[in-house]
Amino acid sequence: MSKSFNEWVKGCQQRVEVAAGELLPPTDLEPKILHEAMRYSVIGGGKRVRPLLVYAVSELFGVDEHNADRVALAIECVHSYSLIHDDLPCMDNDMLRHGKPTTHAKYGEAMAMLAGDALQPEAFIYISETTLNPHQKLVLISLLADAASSRGMCGGQAIDLSMVGKKMTLEELRHMHALKTGTLLHAAVMSGIWCAKEESSSEELIEALSSYGNAVGLLFQIVDDILDVVSSAEKLGKTAGKDALENKPTYVSILGLDKSRELAKEQYELALASVQKIENIVGGNKTLRLREIADFIYSRDH
Amino acid sequence: MSKSFNEWVKGCQQRVEVAAGELLPPTDLEPKILHEAMRYSVIGGGKRVRPLLVYAVSELFGVDEHNADRVALAIECVHSYSLIHDDLPCMDNDMLRHGKPTTHAKYGEAMAMLAGDALQPEAFIYISETTLNPHQKLVLISLLADAASSRGMCGGQAIDLSMVGKKMTLEELRHMHALKTGTLLHAAVMSGIWCAKEESSSEELIEALSSYGNAVGLLFQIVDDILDVVSSAEKLGKTAGKDALENKPTYVSILGLDKSRELAKEQYELALASVQKIENIVGGNKTLRLREIADFIYSRDH
Repeated sequence: MSKSFNEWVKGCQQRVEVAAGELLPPTDLEPKILHEAMRYSVIGGGKRVRPLLVYAVSELFGVDEHNADRVALAIECVHSYSLIHDDLPCMDNDMLRHGKPTTHAKYGEAMAMLAGDALQPEAFIYISETTLNPHQKLVLISLLADAASSRGMCGGQAIDLSMVGKKMTLEELRHMHALKTGTLLHAAVMSGIWCAKEESSSEELIEALSSYGNAVGLLFQIVDDILDVVSSAEKLGKTAGKDALENKPTYVSILGLDKSRELAKEQYELALASVQKIENIVGGNKTLRLREIADFIYSRDH
Repeated sequence: MSKSFNEWVKGCQQRVEVAAGELLPPTDLEPKILHEAMRYSVIGGGKRVRPLLVYAVSELFGVDEHNADRVALAIECVHSYSLIHDDLPCMDNDMLRHGKPTTHAKYGEAMAMLAGDALQPEAFIYISETTLNPHQKLVLISLLADAASSRGMCGGQAIDLSMVGKKMTLEELRHMHALKTGTLLHAAVMSGIWCAKEESSSEELIEALSSYGNAVGLLFQIVDDILDVVSSAEKLGKTAGKDALENKPTYVSILGLDKSRELAKEQYELALASVQKIENIVGGNKTLRLREIADFIYSRDH
């Protein structure tokens, strides 16, 4: 734990890059163009918030790095596929992502859709390839499948889609985001504990981690909405101000900027309170990274 | 085994309908429109060839019906999602499927894409929900994930996409179809045996079933290409003559109609030879359905 947070984050990001480079199908394997598009979409971009959560919780319980890498990459593959599909013309029609052309801007719509489609089964393959016991693998697979399903990420996308131009209550918005981004962030947190030996997971600890996962999930989205208003495309690496332009309901459009900032602070404090509970159970200063990730999500400017 | 083949097929199709009705997320659960689109795509259509294969092999080994239903539906969900995405404007741009409007024709492109996306994790959830042992579940999940991956179905789609208007050798065409439709049909056959108690699966039997799976997979596609030329949209329930119109390489365009029919006959005989091998191992007349499915695929007119 002597590393600074920035160094730790860089190390984690590096691990995702290495794992993706090793595990994604190689570009000299046919169909090369598909494998190129898959790698283009996953490698070399993003803050890797979900892997950071997997790694932070994994380190808390001393999970084998080989397994944590596979689980982190699996979740990142599902996240990446959702971004590819979300950027397509029939969805958000975005040309810029992580500061580079979106997958369909580079490979065409059809190939981008297929790259997304093909990243989803990869996720389940990587979990299968861990050295965890069968029960742990099955829990992780269910966790990820649920998070990716119509009761999770895809459901949130569908609500988002059907709400463009419509009025949404705060509760509806919160529910949409809980599904759209919350479930996968929550799954990232929970997968860390399921990678650990089963005996380390008391009901109380699982509950505290689950609260933490929910709080950072919500916090992430509120900050995202605030940044879409106050930040620039240059910093974001994607088109800024799009939400307002497209008349999308956001925390800022419903609550205004000040109230949104208050709500973000509330969630941040909730996250820290959960970390405190976790620390009370596992002891010591082991939870530093969880605290730092909450700080990072709360105070990021891109 | 006193039922006629037609009665048996109807029974299997009914079982898929019932399982889909029970297991797919209900339309009174939000997001309703997404769940409607998912059900629209899976329920009430298709020959259910993959489930037929699952059921035939499952019956051969006395697999619990509850489990066979879940595995059959899982594979059909992956198949259905691939059809939804394949029909989208950026892919084949088809408006008719199983004699009714395609999913995007009815629900719009974005919702159709999401319905496809959301059907994929359902498949893994249904396998997780069987009462099979953890090892069996994991084998089935890997089998299905591999078949759906870039080394399977998505890979075949990508090759198909990049080959429109180009010359293809017979070997290239065969490879494309082996991935595009072959892997999932093969997975349907093999999943039946993995649902059975492990001790029932000798190397020899697995090999014979695998040959059968490969032969019917190839046979299915050759017949499909022939039907696209000789059948009508009314019979097919989808647009006929599209392959030639779009300058897509097919068995017929490469070999001509007569040679394609010869190749189909060859694969049909290969399938029957594999059935004979299976019968030699399991004994009796248990393999009737496998034989009948090969007949059915060989002689279907739609």
